[in-house]
Amino acid sequence: MDLISTDSLTDEQIAAILDEGDRWLEDNRSTGPRSNRLDGRIIFNLFYENSTRTLMSFSTAAHRLGASVVTLPVEHSSVKKGEILDDTARTLNAMRPDALVIRHQQNGAPAEIAEIMDCPVVNAGDGTNEHPTQALLDAATIRSRFGRIEGLAVAICGDIRHSRVAHSDMKLLERLGATVRLGGPERLVPGGSLSVDEAIEGADVVMMLRVQRERLEEDLGDSPGEYLQRYGLTVERLARAKSDAVVMHPGPMNRGVEIDGAIADDPGRSLIALQVEYGVAIRMACLDLVIRES
Amino acid sequence: MDLISTDSLTDEQIAAILDEGDRWLEDNRSTGPRSNRLDGRIIFNLFYENSTRTLMSFSTAAHRLGASVVTLPVEHSSVKKGEILDDTARTLNAMRPDALVIRHQQNGAPAEIAEIMDCPVVNAGDGTNEHPTQALLDAATIRSRFGRIEGLAVAICGDIRHSRVAHSDMKLLERLGATVRLGGPERLVPGGSLSVDEAIEGADVVMMLRVQRERLEEDLGDSPGEYLQRYGLTVERLARAKSDAVVMHPGPMNRGVEIDGAIADDPGRSLIALQVEYGVAIRMACLDLVIRES
Amino acid sequence: MDLISTDSLTDEQIAAILDEGDRWLEDNRSTGPRSNRLDGRIIFNLFYENSTRTLMSFSTAAHRLGASVVTLPVEHSSVKKGEILDDTARTLNAMRPDALVIRHQQNGAPAEIAEIMDCPVVNAGDGTNEHPTQALLDAATIRSRFGRIEGLAVAICGDIRHSRVAHSDMKLLERLGATVRLGGPERLVPGGSLSVDEAIEGADVVMMLRVQRERLEEDLGDSPGEYLQRYGLTVERLARAKSDAVVMHPGPMNRGVEIDGAIADDPGRSLIALQVEYGVAIRMACLDLVIRES
Repeated sequence: MDLISTDSLTDEQIAAILDEGDRWLEDNRSTGPRSNRLDGRIIFNLFYENSTRTLMSFSTAAHRLGASVVTLPVEHSSVKKGEILDDTARTLNAMRPDALVIRHQQNGAPAEIAEIMDCPVVNAGDGTNEHPTQALLDAATIRSRFGRIEGLAVAICGDIRHSRVAHSDMKLLERLGATVRLGGPERLVPGGSLSVDEAIEGADVVMMLRVQRERLEEDLGDSPGEYLQRYGLTVERLARAKSDAVVMHPGPMNRGVEIDGAIADDPGRSLIALQVEYGVAIRMACLDLVIRES
Repeated sequence: MDLISTDSLTDEQIAAILDEGDRWLEDNRSTGPRSNRLDGRIIFNLFYENSTRTLMSFSTAAHRLGASVVTLPVEHSSVKKGEILDDTARTLNAMRPDALVIRHQQNGAPAEIAEIMDCPVVNAGDGTNEHPTQALLDAATIRSRFGRIEGLAVAICGDIRHSRVAHSDMKLLERLGATVRLGGPERLVPGGSLSVDEAIEGADVVMMLRVQRERLEEDLGDSPGEYLQRYGLTVERLARAKSDAVVMHPGPMNRGVEIDGAIADDPGRSLIALQVEYGVAIRMACLDLVIRES
Repeated sequence: MDLISTDSLTDEQIAAILDEGDRWLEDNRSTGPRSNRLDGRIIFNLFYENSTRTLMSFSTAAHRLGASVVTLPVEHSSVKKGEILDDTARTLNAMRPDALVIRHQQNGAPAEIAEIMDCPVVNAGDGTNEHPTQALLDAATIRSRFGRIEGLAVAICGDIRHSRVAHSDMKLLERLGATVRLGGPERLVPGGSLSVDEAIEGADVVMMLRVQRERLEEDLGDSPGEYLQRYGLTVERLARAKSDAVVMHPGPMNRGVEIDGAIADDPGRSLIALQVEYGVAIRMACLDLVIRES
């Protein structure tokens, strides 16, 4: 089976991934013997966009299960020699990996590649479309704090328009019973947009998105400090959320731009490091599931 | 033992590699438990030329046998700090790898390094000289389709002059009893050259070489479409070969330049994906052989 | 425990590392079954400075112990997206590696990161400050030749001012009972400097440092050949040392600049390859120690 979007997962599979993620998280914190469930398996990482943290997270997850990892250095690859994506996929397929993890700047590229590959394909982010493992790790992180997702109010704030995280998280969290409100600069939020203040009002979870410096200056005409005051998460703004609200960010953060550093560092509030930790654990659960089900 | 050229292999070793390759190919298609013959071994990849597919193929082969892989990122290496090749070899040798796989733009560099290394050295392509594992995988691919190599007519077409694949393939296939004919643009075929039409006439196997875009425009003055009509593999041209002739290409392909995409995609004709699959399998056989014999 | 400087090691730990290094060196020379002491462990390499040899040495050491390695490609990392070092450390920490190896151009960065990481941190070189595993491998190399370190006269020559190797080696070798003399161009040796001739006089060990070509031309106004005559290790100059003196160099060498190639290649004199070999062996001992003690 592939994991291109959480849409293709059954409710039971989502529940299993979240439960397995909790178990792997505990396991990774211990220093006891490690799992070797995927011993002898080879996982290809095909990252057309640079993303150190996601690449390392998937690599660590694979190694934690005993698998080997081969990373395709896209900047040096046949892609530069004019090879088309389908031919790259056919070549990789013929090498018989046990799974392929792909990140691509073009919406739909992972689905296109999955048509060709015989092994499971995991979408590690495609364009402005989907980022299913991020949605699952965010759900796991929220659930670990509140014990549930159903009934929670989640504000996702920032550059919604260009964010596959916002897109995938909203779909999954609503499916799991949360209410999601999107806020941000009017030009960066599709549909009837809320201000960041309105989105945060009464929220249990405030998820801030990374703002691209290019958009900041060119599209919004803001300096970093202006962005923080207008649209970022300040202590004043966070006071609009519930008193026990938590703060999340998919990283890497721009401190002093979309989030006040003091909030990011508040151990009572910030789940940012826990998101990274669930990143490895949930990707372990996902790799294990797609390979076992294939 | 080293594998710098197939010249140094005995007939028995070649036969063993081809047979082992067949077994590993089947093994890699299954999802059963994997081999751990090279468990605990460390293989260094030293690639002075970028070649994603060959690097991934060797890495996958090593992992499939349970070995670890350390890839030397040449673009960042001491080479840039002015270290000479012999000193690099002495340094790598002192790290005691179990095998070294090297690709180098300079003819003879792998042989030079093999003089210094105590461990086996496998040539992954040097300049316009040799590419022994490509020759072995091409032989294995042909044999798997026809059940034999002896007596077959093989046409290798394109930029013969600059191709280590043509050089290594011709030597090995003729040794194994095939007749090899070289065809291509007059300036790119040494000796008494055949036209592509002449080389293909009555062939069992048509192997098209990648044309470098630089040569295309500067040396030949052709556009990509012109090259296809003059020297590439079109449906009309392929009709000159035997009715059950197969098509091969070492990749990555330029569709619409040296080969019509429809031919590359014809499952009854094209062995291109099978070549990639044998790439991993034959490299497993080669790594296993050179390490066991050392 | 961390290994930021050899200062934090007890005498017993230093002795244990040197003894273990001797054992791993023998082990790596054999082709018998390998250790799997760190099987299932994951070691992160975080190299902010390019250093192929040190990166490969640590990677090989980790693999020799059965551990997995994940290398953070710093040039593509979040660092470029403006993430601060502390946030990078928090992110890596949340991925729960079993050890982190860091090289950084800034003095003190490894210590700063070690404050954040829960796992052991090994300093692979920070700015002009420390390079503890180099000092340990140099001590092991010297001891393996002379059977002792106490009472030996060690000359370290070249760009002392900018050399963390000189700094770390001097501290450790003096602690182990050697006398260390620093020599080099006046501008590149802090304190009351000796000429290279004076430093070498009567030495048991002559350790030449790499000279940066930038400094050569800009700071010293020398051509490479002039540097060799004025400050490099020539046959004439080496004659000032003891008759059985040995020559060392942390690599990569500039032949004909800081060292005459003939000396580097003299098997009776040069311990340069042995240093590389101890590099892997001592790093195995260090990784094993810091992980077991944590």
